[in-house]
Amino acid sequence: MTTVYDVTTFSASVSPYTDIGTVINEIIADIKAQQTSQTTRPGAVIYIPPGHYDLRTRVVIDISYLQIKGSGHGFQSLAIRDESPTGGWADTLPGGSHIQMKNTDGTTTAFLVQRSGSPAIVGRINSVEFRDFVIDGVSASKPYLPGSGKVGISIQSDNDSIRIEGMGFVYLSTAMSVRGADAAWVTGNFVAECGTCLELTGASQVVRVSNNFLISAWAGASVFAENAEGLLVQGNTLVWHGSIRLVNSQRCAITGNKFVSSWAGMVILESGSGENLVAANQFTRVDTESSNDNGRDDLFGMIQISGSNNSVLSNHMSYNVAGPLRRPSGATPTLILVKSGDRNVINGNTLVANVAASVVLDASTTNTKVIYTTTAAQLQAFTASFAHVPMP
Amino acid sequence: MTTVYDVTTFSASVSPYTDIGTVINEIIADIKAQQTSQTTRPGAVIYIPPGHYDLRTRVVIDISYLQIKGSGHGFQSLAIRDESPTGGWADTLPGGSHIQMKNTDGTTTAFLVQRSGSPAIVGRINSVEFRDFVIDGVSASKPYLPGSGKVGISIQSDNDSIRIEGMGFVYLSTAMSVRGADAAWVTGNFVAECGTCLELTGASQVVRVSNNFLISAWAGASVFAENAEGLLVQGNTLVWHGSIRLVNSQRCAITGNKFVSSWAGMVILESGSGENLVAANQFTRVDTESSNDNGRDDLFGMIQISGSNNSVLSNHMSYNVAGPLRRPSGATPTLILVKSGDRNVINGNTLVANVAASVVLDASTTNTKVIYTTTAAQLQAFTASFAHVPMP
Amino acid sequence: MTTVYDVTTFSASVSPYTDIGTVINEIIADIKAQQTSQTTRPGAVIYIPPGHYDLRTRVVIDISYLQIKGSGHGFQSLAIRDESPTGGWADTLPGGSHIQMKNTDGTTTAFLVQRSGSPAIVGRINSVEFRDFVIDGVSASKPYLPGSGKVGISIQSDNDSIRIEGMGFVYLSTAMSVRGADAAWVTGNFVAECGTCLELTGASQVVRVSNNFLISAWAGASVFAENAEGLLVQGNTLVWHGSIRLVNSQRCAITGNKFVSSWAGMVILESGSGENLVAANQFTRVDTESSNDNGRDDLFGMIQISGSNNSVLSNHMSYNVAGPLRRPSGATPTLILVKSGDRNVINGNTLVANVAASVVLDASTTNTKVIYTTTAAQLQAFTASFAHVPMP
Repeated sequence: MTTVYDVTTFSASVSPYTDIGTVINEIIADIKAQQTSQTTRPGAVIYIPPGHYDLRTRVVIDISYLQIKGSGHGFQSLAIRDESPTGGWADTLPGGSHIQMKNTDGTTTAFLVQRSGSPAIVGRINSVEFRDFVIDGVSASKPYLPGSGKVGISIQSDNDSIRIEGMGFVYLSTAMSVRGADAAWVTGNFVAECGTCLELTGASQVVRVSNNFLISAWAGASVFAENAEGLLVQGNTLVWHGSIRLVNSQRCAITGNKFVSSWAGMVILESGSGENLVAANQFTRVDTESSNDNGRDDLFGMIQISGSNNSVLSNHMSYNVAGPLRRPSGATPTLILVKSGDRNVINGNTLVANVAASVVLDASTTNTKVIYTTTAAQLQAFTASFAHVPMP
Repeated sequence: MTTVYDVTTFSASVSPYTDIGTVINEIIADIKAQQTSQTTRPGAVIYIPPGHYDLRTRVVIDISYLQIKGSGHGFQSLAIRDESPTGGWADTLPGGSHIQMKNTDGTTTAFLVQRSGSPAIVGRINSVEFRDFVIDGVSASKPYLPGSGKVGISIQSDNDSIRIEGMGFVYLSTAMSVRGADAAWVTGNFVAECGTCLELTGASQVVRVSNNFLISAWAGASVFAENAEGLLVQGNTLVWHGSIRLVNSQRCAITGNKFVSSWAGMVILESGSGENLVAANQFTRVDTESSNDNGRDDLFGMIQISGSNNSVLSNHMSYNVAGPLRRPSGATPTLILVKSGDRNVINGNTLVANVAASVVLDASTTNTKVIYTTTAAQLQAFTASFAHVPMP
Repeated sequence: MTTVYDVTTFSASVSPYTDIGTVINEIIADIKAQQTSQTTRPGAVIYIPPGHYDLRTRVVIDISYLQIKGSGHGFQSLAIRDESPTGGWADTLPGGSHIQMKNTDGTTTAFLVQRSGSPAIVGRINSVEFRDFVIDGVSASKPYLPGSGKVGISIQSDNDSIRIEGMGFVYLSTAMSVRGADAAWVTGNFVAECGTCLELTGASQVVRVSNNFLISAWAGASVFAENAEGLLVQGNTLVWHGSIRLVNSQRCAITGNKFVSSWAGMVILESGSGENLVAANQFTRVDTESSNDNGRDDLFGMIQISGSNNSVLSNHMSYNVAGPLRRPSGATPTLILVKSGDRNVINGNTLVANVAASVVLDASTTNTKVIYTTTAAQLQAFTASFAHVPMP
């Protein structure tokens, strides 16, 4: 019994260059045909050598322990090439182990991980791994959301210890969408020219997002999570619309990241997100793209908090937006907005701006502590319930 | 001369499914038979395809530059499955490249790395690598220590630049035990349902522990180190009994981690550990499991320090334990205990608790600085030698 | 068409053990001969099995999407072995997939990545990857710079999303030199006994340097960057001459690293480097090697800043140098020197020293904030334009 497959040598009904989706589905069928009892299901590895592969049919993974692995994340900056007026580019496609989504199956997904079960947990899928290849949406228009609706990897039933590592994603509405993630692992990936890089829907437990490039456009987010517990977003580089949005999420940590964004809303803790830590990040806000809009003006805050007991500690925030590009015109930009909630702590951050800028505490907020982050003039409190230790 | 082996194709005396330990030992013997002079020892790679492999005989690695590599960390949460009253689980075993420890050789180790030499340094083993497979203790009872005594990887002679990456470990007393580590590298691993995840014994130099899931039970530790110099524990997720214990260890750094624990003692700096940094971590203390006990009550501290010149900076600590589960009953929980030592600094941390909670300075401590971490009421000093800047 | 090559089985004009450089160049020629149109260039993977390979001819990579991959970083500490008076060492060479630079081609480079184009961006090379092998300069004398001049990987034309991961580098003047890097990725490497580990020349954008061991000698740097924007140096261990030097670099982040150095100048922000963040690092300064000199005495500062709006937050700095080894003799060591610039912030750091030591603000500096980092006595301000909140 083999557990090692190669899409280019497996005897499939179609060439992998024509439809790698069908080939992988047939491999999965073969795995299931061979691994027939509950104690003989170690899964398998499917290798994708470097090449340009069309995907016409969605892959459906309903087994655990499947590793799909290529030999190269194959990213190139289509954005830079497309926007350059110069011809003569050597490369016009991504490369490496390169899957081009050309679905003719009526779906807009490359890989769907899903297994039914009742209750849901008995169908739980374990340790599926995606490594070292690139999923390319082929064509797309900014900001990609809703756009083509293409999703690179969609995981839609209970799952444990999924690993997405070393992958490339490009020109997708959503690169990765994971529902009900427990201990998922998203590390070392290159996501660019996508609407949303990663969304964690439903509820998640202790997911890890580390060491990635996450480059999202203005309509989506670098990382979106709802009802997350203990998410760690650590050591990533988040660019263009570098943004993390947590909805009703608790005890998460956003540390040691490098953010760049052309829009407000770089970290959003909303809908009662509490006890989260935002520490030791470098935030850089650059000129807003004048014709594009993520719906948030400069009063939104580079960081916005609606929830209690969150900590914003030891970050460096740089705001450098030309006057004509600030919104609303003439307003004082808000670097941190505490919109609602009790006992949030903003301590030991450095604010740098090319214009007078503020930390703002909205009227409903209580007991916010703002310590060595702003001068007296830089703090705008619409509440009397706060404490301030001004920057000397 | 080949340097690329596959356990399923090597001509061994036994099937790898019956005893992968013997197969790997015979491969190592073959490597040694072929690599006979001091300048012709590049080592080799041994590949373990996905499969369920029994290990009856301990592997003994006494050569450098051996990489043992699988295609999948194959973890599943046995705990969740075992504790669920629901039948019908699709998966009942881990998978991927899955080694099941069924030792019949009188040992309780899967992989022993050891080479003799006199002095010890001449036997030093370099750059052995374990990657992308899972070591399964098969059966075990909580809290796993002392339990079966099974150890996944045991490195017991001088070693340099060992790499353990992308592995799974499950149901072991101790997943990894390394003596005398120099520049070891433990990264990207999934360790769960183990007594202790990683122990660094003897003395170690600049070991790196990054980007791991480390899930230990209450009898052991996520990371234990004695006489460590310059250990970096960075960007990990430590769960269940998320705990790091450093004994007589100096100038280590614990940064950017996410901790969850049901017990006190999440970071313990003891026996004169000094000049260590604990920064930018999110600590979450949840309900103690009422029938289990790690020997530390709520007066022990989520962080406890016995040593000098340590720094606890910019962490977020959340304590949320139901009243009946606090120990001793009715006591005010201690979030940080400085038990002994001089000039420890606790600066810029956020404390959140569902009950009045304290930072405690014991009587023997001197010159502790507690800055913007507690209110006046939250600091209990049994010494007059300290400085306090209360949270406003 | 194959896209998977093995240096030991490819039909080359020379044995890979004699000249792996020629073999890889011939493989690249074969790739180019087969991938002839602009839309059929996925690149390829070249595998280097464990072995000792001589390189006599420089490899020139002028295609995108090439992954060169071995099976082991193969490091051993030549320094420790060479400096030990004890004979009988088991290992005297590095191992794994081991390339020994014995250039007879008049160059001193192992891998050159370069493609011409006009303007330069059209020649831009994408997603070349180096993984899991070791480049060995074979012989070298400390401090390796200028030394043999050997460079392991030299990338000299516009490039995007280059990945260098899991590599070993030893006995080189410069391990990695990258010009004009955009979104390069240097992670999980072991660099030791080198002059400079990584230099980013020209200008770079959002490069990532994470999770590495970087061990450089006193003449070079662990990381050198000029005109960098948004560089992230995160979670690394930097030893011996643990040093990061940024020249005219903006909005970079140095977080969560462990530094050890025998010399001053562990982080240098110079020539107008601004808005950079240095946070949550553990810095350890140990005895200077008496006969070696990096040109910086103890008045240089463990951290030195010449630029504005930089932040040094929540670091732990340990200075422990024996009196006779301090330079100039009898001087008070400087831990942080703000040499020039406006509005730098030094907040919430812990300083530990075995002698009276200072933070120094030079005469030209303005508006530096020094908060909870030094006592009154530990701050030496040669300017009146600063604010100080002394450690209580």
